[in-house]
Amino acid sequence: MSKSLPVVQPGRAGQTPIFEKIGIVGLGLMGGSLALAAREVWPSSLVVGVDEKDVLERGMVRGAIDVGADDLVVIAEADLVVLAAPVAENVRLLHMLDEYVPGEAVVTDLGGTKREMVAAARALPTRFTFVGGHPLAGAARSGIDAARSDLFKGRPWLFTPSGTVHGGAIERLFAFASGVGSVPKLLDPDVHDRLVAFLSHLPQLSASALMRVVGDAVGEEGLQLSGRGLADTTRLASSPARIWRDICATNADHIGEALDLLIADLKALRADLTTGDALERIFESATDWKAKIP
Amino acid sequence: MSKSLPVVQPGRAGQTPIFEKIGIVGLGLMGGSLALAAREVWPSSLVVGVDEKDVLERGMVRGAIDVGADDLVVIAEADLVVLAAPVAENVRLLHMLDEYVPGEAVVTDLGGTKREMVAAARALPTRFTFVGGHPLAGAARSGIDAARSDLFKGRPWLFTPSGTVHGGAIERLFAFASGVGSVPKLLDPDVHDRLVAFLSHLPQLSASALMRVVGDAVGEEGLQLSGRGLADTTRLASSPARIWRDICATNADHIGEALDLLIADLKALRADLTTGDALERIFESATDWKAKIP
Repeated sequence: MSKSLPVVQPGRAGQTPIFEKIGIVGLGLMGGSLALAAREVWPSSLVVGVDEKDVLERGMVRGAIDVGADDLVVIAEADLVVLAAPVAENVRLLHMLDEYVPGEAVVTDLGGTKREMVAAARALPTRFTFVGGHPLAGAARSGIDAARSDLFKGRPWLFTPSGTVHGGAIERLFAFASGVGSVPKLLDPDVHDRLVAFLSHLPQLSASALMRVVGDAVGEEGLQLSGRGLADTTRLASSPARIWRDICATNADHIGEALDLLIADLKALRADLTTGDALERIFESATDWKAKIP
Repeated sequence: MSKSLPVVQPGRAGQTPIFEKIGIVGLGLMGGSLALAAREVWPSSLVVGVDEKDVLERGMVRGAIDVGADDLVVIAEADLVVLAAPVAENVRLLHMLDEYVPGEAVVTDLGGTKREMVAAARALPTRFTFVGGHPLAGAARSGIDAARSDLFKGRPWLFTPSGTVHGGAIERLFAFASGVGSVPKLLDPDVHDRLVAFLSHLPQLSASALMRVVGDAVGEEGLQLSGRGLADTTRLASSPARIWRDICATNADHIGEALDLLIADLKALRADLTTGDALERIFESATDWKAKIP
């Protein structure tokens, strides 16, 4: 199955391929969307997916992959390996590459935290060039069925190289990320992890906690009276625990700092409900910052 | 000026008026939207606005009011008085009605908390029939410029009568609320205040606190990398402090309970970042509740 030829679709000229054989391990929202986008942009590249059988079938139906298997053997000849599973699983997969991929390859991942992955990649044999990556893209639903080829359009894709990266891998990854519509940027792994602790992880944790507290307090009947305020504030609240467990475990220091700061502000509001001084201070600062979000 | 005739617009038949002269005190997002809607639905009713001069001018330009003044004297003959200022100001206005409105009138308000208003209304002379009200409608921006006649369409409008309400006032207010497109419901004032502490006040406070913490931590440059998750989670973060100061002061017990529960969940997440057990529990519950939001 791994020897299948790429399905060249007539009438779609596509761009010059950057990688010949793209192995994507994990066809969830992110991996699935990248597979769809890659097949659309580079029809002459072979897109190979690794996931469980039912996910592969849905990926095939969606036209996300040329070839798929539930075994890493299928990515043996890949010149680009994209690890698109939750962070802890990506670390485990990284340690298996030596056994399954005999040739040279650029390796990246799509995980939401970068320090642990970058550290784990130091153990890779030198034929692999690893550059951690994190496309800042998302959707309310997860999984291959929510995947879409325009998920990365206009969104930043952060790459976090560590040490010396050989062979033009960064340039190729930048071209690849640009090809699917994103805006690639370089960032230090630790700077990345602190930034996303605030931009992404704290909003996620507070949205889930808020939804749980509100739901438990007012029940299903009470929720029928909720409006767009609660709906927007809790838009992230359906995110899957298994992805966020890994993110929290691999970014606990920065997320801990972010949670402490939020808890401190909520306590200040709590202590001051009748006079409103903390409220005034926090609301004015929030209004200023909100105006600076693009 | 208060004697001006209603501007009957040709070609707009309108519905049978429920009130002849509607006095709206405070032409912000809520009062302004109600004025716009009332003029659209009942062109033969007179819509009279009270606010500062520049707000009245903008209200006139928008076609929100027939008549306006910066003095309560203009609502002397109103048979419906709508107090649409922040809660503490509404309480102050309530005590002025006896002096300015000599005839019988139905009085309601649009404030976000109800117990304090309902208690204050017990001091009104008997020619006034007070029924507290709270349309569950909102928008990202505030003020007359953000007002829109369809703000109430399909949204619940909670009325919180206390004691015996005479003269069919509730029926008339229900017809009025239905006329502008909302779905009127009756609720006990205390039940209302606890419900909105969770559905509205807690999301607002956490959105503002989140925005302040994230902005302070990552700065303007960091915010350029933010995505829809942060944008949605902080959609409410531009809400004006002066409205929320009053809401918090008049609902401190229920909001305090809500904040305590949220702080407790955030602390549980904080304590458990590396194992993820609290995270699993909270995310699963949040996903369940999120699915029950209409």
